[in-house]
Amino acid sequence: MKARVTVTLKPGVLDPQGKAIEGALRSMSIEGVHAVRQGKIFDIEIDGEDHKRARATLGEACERLLANTLVEDYAIEVAKSP
Amino acid sequence: MKARVTVTLKPGVLDPQGKAIEGALRSMSIEGVHAVRQGKIFDIEIDGEDHKRARATLGEACERLLANTLVEDYAIEVAKSP
Repeated sequence: MKARVTVTLKPGVLDPQGKAIEGALRSMSIEGVHAVRQGKIFDIEIDGEDHKRARATLGEACERLLANTLVEDYAIEVAKSP
Repeated sequence: MKARVTVTLKPGVLDPQGKAIEGALRSMSIEGVHAVRQGKIFDIEIDGEDHKRARATLGEACERLLANTLVEDYAIEVAKSP
């Protein structure tokens, strides 16, 4: 079963990397882009077909490793394998 | 207008960071997780309400800055502002 975990900075947390990208785009004459915020995704293959169990496993993985829950939010999407 | 750009490694490109995460999860007794691949997202505010133009701008941003198109794929989602 495939899953995608998305980790983003919580609103209000400063994102200097996003700011740098914004500045870089402007200096490349790519205009109209602002408020860039960077995040991470993890595409994961997970055993079994039990969505609830997969979500629980991934939730634990986020809490303990993938996200810093002080400053980051995470979202889990589980897709059926084809 | 809000947009999200997702940058992922092309299939077949090695992802040592993903491998390390996989190993770390196993060592934390989080089982059943394999084939972890890491990617990046960029949440972007873009001026105007013209979806086609926004996509063109973001496509250029991806080609020139956000993605390394030799080894990475990118996807652009544009959402209407509320």
